[in-house]
Amino acid sequence: MQLLKDMIINKGKVREGNILKVDSFLNHQMDIKLFNEMGKEFKRRFEGQKIDKILTIEASGIGIAAIVSQYFDYVPVVFAKKTESLNLDKEVYESEVHSFTKKKTYKVRVGKQFLNEGENILIIDDFLAKGCATKGLIDILNQSKANLVGVGIVIEKGFQEGRSVLEEMNARVESLAIIEKFEDGKVVLK
Amino acid sequence: MQLLKDMIINKGKVREGNILKVDSFLNHQMDIKLFNEMGKEFKRRFEGQKIDKILTIEASGIGIAAIVSQYFDYVPVVFAKKTESLNLDKEVYESEVHSFTKKKTYKVRVGKQFLNEGENILIIDDFLAKGCATKGLIDILNQSKANLVGVGIVIEKGFQEGRSVLEEMNARVESLAIIEKFEDGKVVLK
Repeated sequence: MQLLKDMIINKGKVREGNILKVDSFLNHQMDIKLFNEMGKEFKRRFEGQKIDKILTIEASGIGIAAIVSQYFDYVPVVFAKKTESLNLDKEVYESEVHSFTKKKTYKVRVGKQFLNEGENILIIDDFLAKGCATKGLIDILNQSKANLVGVGIVIEKGFQEGRSVLEEMNARVESLAIIEKFEDGKVVLK
Repeated sequence: MQLLKDMIINKGKVREGNILKVDSFLNHQMDIKLFNEMGKEFKRRFEGQKIDKILTIEASGIGIAAIVSQYFDYVPVVFAKKTESLNLDKEVYESEVHSFTKKKTYKVRVGKQFLNEGENILIIDDFLAKGCATKGLIDILNQSKANLVGVGIVIEKGFQEGRSVLEEMNARVESLAIIEKFEDGKVVLK
């Protein structure tokens, strides 16, 4: 997706440890026009697939998934929660996720009433690196016996194992931009 | 806003301690059609006001603010972060917020480059109760010398002090639904 690739090249910043910062348009400040273009592209990639619901994870996935829903007939968007909210019902599916960025393991939870057997689910998230967060979402989805239609990722770190981890779980992965490598502090896209 | 009021009455659940759960359409599963209607209504309330940017707070505010932006000429949406991300730049505005729901105090942060002097900001959030989170956002906004155009709230607990706290800070508050009280485990709206 060219618009996204241009923004990654022009506005992304590579920090120490090869961390790509895209917080000026993706995960701190959000470019809603870009998100709409991403929605159109995900629709094109998953054309003809029946989608009943979108599943994502707080916080960065939420805004993307909300806009993407509009291109899939405004299906409900469910976001997995990372913190134990006093407001969350006891009846939840949960899975453990390790974040290498934040260097900690946390639980993700989805209220059982929001994922049902046989529902067709599209997972949307901002990043795919080692695949830990998405793997947690698929684990939750499997507990609910919903069907995974596919995983829509905005930026994939193609040099990490996320894609193969998910494909081993029989997930179809569609990424709008794939980073081949970092070179001299710059992003090289596929 | 009648559609929202109907959903609160029909789908909201009142739990022990007078906690209103609206997680089937607002803050765990998100009803994107409803969010679009909310966007239209916020536009009507703030008609004629110049808005350069929307400011909200993770996690529940993000989806709402993303959709609302589409009714304000797709202005950028910035969400304040609650956790100290290793990815967050050191140059941040920050403020402390106490959450009575979660019974803890946490810091909220916005990267300095995302709020600029003289920008006209609309704050959007899902709930207004005691006003703590919104007060934190206004504090951050004041540090940046941006202008606060107003605060758009989806559900206000009208029996708590949030509105007066914000109005004392010279904020214009527009709530789409106002809870007058809880009575016999039911919501009574204004």
